[in-house]
Amino acid sequence: MTQKYTVGIIGGAGYTAGELIRILRWHPAVELSFVHSNSQAGKPVSSIHQDLAGDFFMDFTAAVDLKVDVLFLCSGHGKSRSWLAENEVPAETLVVDLSTDFRLTDDFVYGLPELNRAAIMSSKRIANPGCFATAIQLGLLPLAAAGKLKEEVHIHAITGSTGAGQQPQPTTHFSWRNNNLSVYKPFEHQHLAEIGRSLAFLQEDDLPELAFLPLRGDFARGIFASLYLRTDLSEKYLQTLYQDYYAEHVFTHVVADNPHLKQVVNTNKCLVQITKQGNRALIISVIDNLLKGASGQAVQNMNLALGLEETTGLQLKAMVF
Amino acid sequence: MTQKYTVGIIGGAGYTAGELIRILRWHPAVELSFVHSNSQAGKPVSSIHQDLAGDFFMDFTAAVDLKVDVLFLCSGHGKSRSWLAENEVPAETLVVDLSTDFRLTDDFVYGLPELNRAAIMSSKRIANPGCFATAIQLGLLPLAAAGKLKEEVHIHAITGSTGAGQQPQPTTHFSWRNNNLSVYKPFEHQHLAEIGRSLAFLQEDDLPELAFLPLRGDFARGIFASLYLRTDLSEKYLQTLYQDYYAEHVFTHVVADNPHLKQVVNTNKCLVQITKQGNRALIISVIDNLLKGASGQAVQNMNLALGLEETTGLQLKAMVF
Amino acid sequence: MTQKYTVGIIGGAGYTAGELIRILRWHPAVELSFVHSNSQAGKPVSSIHQDLAGDFFMDFTAAVDLKVDVLFLCSGHGKSRSWLAENEVPAETLVVDLSTDFRLTDDFVYGLPELNRAAIMSSKRIANPGCFATAIQLGLLPLAAAGKLKEEVHIHAITGSTGAGQQPQPTTHFSWRNNNLSVYKPFEHQHLAEIGRSLAFLQEDDLPELAFLPLRGDFARGIFASLYLRTDLSEKYLQTLYQDYYAEHVFTHVVADNPHLKQVVNTNKCLVQITKQGNRALIISVIDNLLKGASGQAVQNMNLALGLEETTGLQLKAMVF
Amino acid sequence: MTQKYTVGIIGGAGYTAGELIRILRWHPAVELSFVHSNSQAGKPVSSIHQDLAGDFFMDFTAAVDLKVDVLFLCSGHGKSRSWLAENEVPAETLVVDLSTDFRLTDDFVYGLPELNRAAIMSSKRIANPGCFATAIQLGLLPLAAAGKLKEEVHIHAITGSTGAGQQPQPTTHFSWRNNNLSVYKPFEHQHLAEIGRSLAFLQEDDLPELAFLPLRGDFARGIFASLYLRTDLSEKYLQTLYQDYYAEHVFTHVVADNPHLKQVVNTNKCLVQITKQGNRALIISVIDNLLKGASGQAVQNMNLALGLEETTGLQLKAMVF
Repeated sequence: MTQKYTVGIIGGAGYTAGELIRILRWHPAVELSFVHSNSQAGKPVSSIHQDLAGDFFMDFTAAVDLKVDVLFLCSGHGKSRSWLAENEVPAETLVVDLSTDFRLTDDFVYGLPELNRAAIMSSKRIANPGCFATAIQLGLLPLAAAGKLKEEVHIHAITGSTGAGQQPQPTTHFSWRNNNLSVYKPFEHQHLAEIGRSLAFLQEDDLPELAFLPLRGDFARGIFASLYLRTDLSEKYLQTLYQDYYAEHVFTHVVADNPHLKQVVNTNKCLVQITKQGNRALIISVIDNLLKGASGQAVQNMNLALGLEETTGLQLKAMVF
Repeated sequence: MTQKYTVGIIGGAGYTAGELIRILRWHPAVELSFVHSNSQAGKPVSSIHQDLAGDFFMDFTAAVDLKVDVLFLCSGHGKSRSWLAENEVPAETLVVDLSTDFRLTDDFVYGLPELNRAAIMSSKRIANPGCFATAIQLGLLPLAAAGKLKEEVHIHAITGSTGAGQQPQPTTHFSWRNNNLSVYKPFEHQHLAEIGRSLAFLQEDDLPELAFLPLRGDFARGIFASLYLRTDLSEKYLQTLYQDYYAEHVFTHVVADNPHLKQVVNTNKCLVQITKQGNRALIISVIDNLLKGASGQAVQNMNLALGLEETTGLQLKAMVF
Repeated sequence: MTQKYTVGIIGGAGYTAGELIRILRWHPAVELSFVHSNSQAGKPVSSIHQDLAGDFFMDFTAAVDLKVDVLFLCSGHGKSRSWLAENEVPAETLVVDLSTDFRLTDDFVYGLPELNRAAIMSSKRIANPGCFATAIQLGLLPLAAAGKLKEEVHIHAITGSTGAGQQPQPTTHFSWRNNNLSVYKPFEHQHLAEIGRSLAFLQEDDLPELAFLPLRGDFARGIFASLYLRTDLSEKYLQTLYQDYYAEHVFTHVVADNPHLKQVVNTNKCLVQITKQGNRALIISVIDNLLKGASGQAVQNMNLALGLEETTGLQLKAMVF
Repeated sequence: MTQKYTVGIIGGAGYTAGELIRILRWHPAVELSFVHSNSQAGKPVSSIHQDLAGDFFMDFTAAVDLKVDVLFLCSGHGKSRSWLAENEVPAETLVVDLSTDFRLTDDFVYGLPELNRAAIMSSKRIANPGCFATAIQLGLLPLAAAGKLKEEVHIHAITGSTGAGQQPQPTTHFSWRNNNLSVYKPFEHQHLAEIGRSLAFLQEDDLPELAFLPLRGDFARGIFASLYLRTDLSEKYLQTLYQDYYAEHVFTHVVADNPHLKQVVNTNKCLVQITKQGNRALIISVIDNLLKGASGQAVQNMNLALGLEETTGLQLKAMVF
């Protein structure tokens, strides 16, 4: 590869930016031009993202070069929109926004490759999906695409502490969170909006209700989602439907065995299992919230938009233990 | 107290027996006469229940004295029935069985004090409920008692590793379980039978379906259960219903704030919260699986059956952190 | 017991105050008169110490009654001295201070019962020891009392996150601390001063150096300390020395088997093992940092100073799993 | 790269084999020819190494092709020697043995690149070091190479549960291990032999004693080692010594900031910090026990022996959270 794409990260001190750096530093087709942070400008990136100690020597910068090939916006919800208003990013610069700001607009393509790969490949403005939204959609897209989402869907999904960000909170204090569980935002998590929008895009008929109960788990990484709904469809039909839908998607795999969370931790994979239990279809969907649920998917979107092989830089060693 | 009740434990090497010993050793009205174990006979009880090291010096014994005042059966599912067939326990000996063997029979009183306190107080044969069954029933009893269980109930409950017992299994290997989650026995957990039996006892009308998804969590102790159902009842009605139902039950408390698991760990308490979220009632119920879900409740039953104050020996210091 | 001692807690919102409340609420000889907190005054105590939800209904108060029988000072290091300067506590009120402020003075008795029981029993001013200091001293007192601390002692002790207090810090963020380890304050932890003072009190000869490496562990509770030194003394001599020293101390036990941390978690116990490994004596000492290392010991001191049985209210159910 | 090296794994069902597969599947210069396992022959590799589900479809085999370019022996301690006795491996086949069997012999080169890189590059028989041995040696090699190991070294090292292997044991039961700590094999861990041999190779003078206390930690991955010794050398001298020694070693980095374990988890890196604390040098050394402590280092050795770039296939995304 003769020429590498140049990449800049805006809002480089948070968790998703850290994951981006961890991926991009070894990505064969890109070069990390700068990592922007107002709060940390001048300090070594490895002072915040400490796994980089010893072999990564860039400093955070307050200066931004808008002429890079790719910009990742990691400043957090609400800040991408204002940053873009204040900075004139050239139209040909690829922008991948990791916040919620543009997920429900038509200005940006919603960056879920399993839903929108073709549109992503020809877009310069991509809104990266939310983590819960990714896990849940990947559990439902094939049904929606077949117009078979007919009954209320019951969704429980448990997230790791990194989903709550880097800023310490009472519910991310180790003494509290260790060995603990709790529910939050029952039936009204903000990701329901983007989920509903995607499903409506695929299924012409009215959608059923989605009853979604999010939980805080006592682990740092990952989302474990279980979904079920009543259906007359057979297990064989359902499994074929899912296999076919994901046949050409390299990161989402329909598996036969009961999934557990650590199968996907530290990878960009999603494992989906669908079985019939009595008259219900049960779907288990597991992802790493910081990778397929955030920065890994952002790189996947970048790869697609740049015309690179989708898996470039994303062949990550799983952690599992 | 002049005379203490004598107590024997059958099957003393497992987790539930360990918890019984931890409670009974400080219980002011009983005296632990023997801890039976065929496999560990002759060894110090503290060699298995290692927290007892230094200040508890009884040995396991293969000999059994059937003339104690109270016998706890902790040998495990399927073994209580055969043990009772082989041993002629006097009718006046109080037997509290911690296995599943007698939970669905009429020979034993089902030992959930919030359901059956009066019957327990006059019984000599008590079947101690299952852990999931306890958490879930305590979330539903008031509704059933009011005949208001009309719509399908969606139940998601996560258990700690001690629920799987002392025998090592692949899913209790630390390397696997740490930071992990998985579903098991979806919609068909064996505790559904005892739950259904209790609810039918309270509610004359037909019961709705209970959709119960059990999960393995990455903590050692506790059950976190969330339950919801559609209802027209108001939040105020529901909260009053629950407050009234549990008003005279000293270990089950209806709370206003969003519960988390560690509020009850290492106690005999159950915290229940009921709120209205749109047209659904959401109930959170948390217990310690080894205490209110097993050995603590067994002692509570003993207290009731012996005519002691219900809380005797069960005023346990919570762990919380 | 006809009349109960009245107790007040100053600085009631932190971890050590929470543990005190959990113990004192069930303590048969005392009555909790007030829990003071400037920052939380007017709020329910259970809003901060959330395990109390459902069955403990006192509010925090800004008002203080100096005429109670016992005052526990939990405001934190540096604040006890100023609080006592501003409040005229009657000489007959028993004051147990959980901060570092008076541990090195002669105004207060150093409240380590295994060192100072007689003095504690006749004192009204007690400085409760530090958590590391307790674990380490209990590993060394018998040697010092015999004048046998002759060679440098190598100490490695790992503490849970509750040792760092309730205020969130980067090193108590769950995402950071989970599955992690780190060293801090190598060879210069502030508890070395109180340890050295106690040892010098027991051993007339010069003390050897104490090389103490503290670590942050990825658990919430407990201190696991290992200590070793070269010695010519035999294992039999050492074990007898330790057995004899602790024979009359009800919470510190010399054990034969290799201790693990969870044997003592949620108890006021200390387990000490001493063995000879080649020409070194190896000592393992484990405690719960919030109980024997803080609030449990504070109650033990109170019991002694009030002339109560030392174990009153401290027969706590171990957690172990 | 036109032609890939062929690789076989003997004893493919354990943890170290799993890690090898995770690395080698993405390694650009090798092709995985077979994964041998007698116990699992015929089953999918992903049935044991479950993170491979969905995108890795090889089965375990009982058949072995001795003519591959590289053989990794992962059958466990004691089994490599007998396997090699029963199988005539061609002299030109590169054998990397992950057991202890050949670490103390002259038939194999000891595969610690920071000690033996040149010898590894020209060898066909490599004995991969132990995990504790790697962490500890990397903390001491520069001192030994300078002949400055003069005083007793005090070593504490804490290992994750994966160090104890896949076979369940009482000390790897989640209920036991979670939030727990314990010491094992004090001062006599078997890795002391290989450590001593390497240090003696570098330092002509007599070596001081190494007092090594290994601990079991409550995390799955990683080794956190602290080492200290008295010395007159200045901090500046020591840091320069370490910087110089590791200047050309791409995976071992001398860092200025206090290391924590998760900086290296899921990487092949070792971070070493050396500081002067009073008259002691304190060294912190952290590795991932399954990577730099086992399978990552095995691949590093393979790369060197095949004349590949040392980092090939080992640019792994750190986990850190």
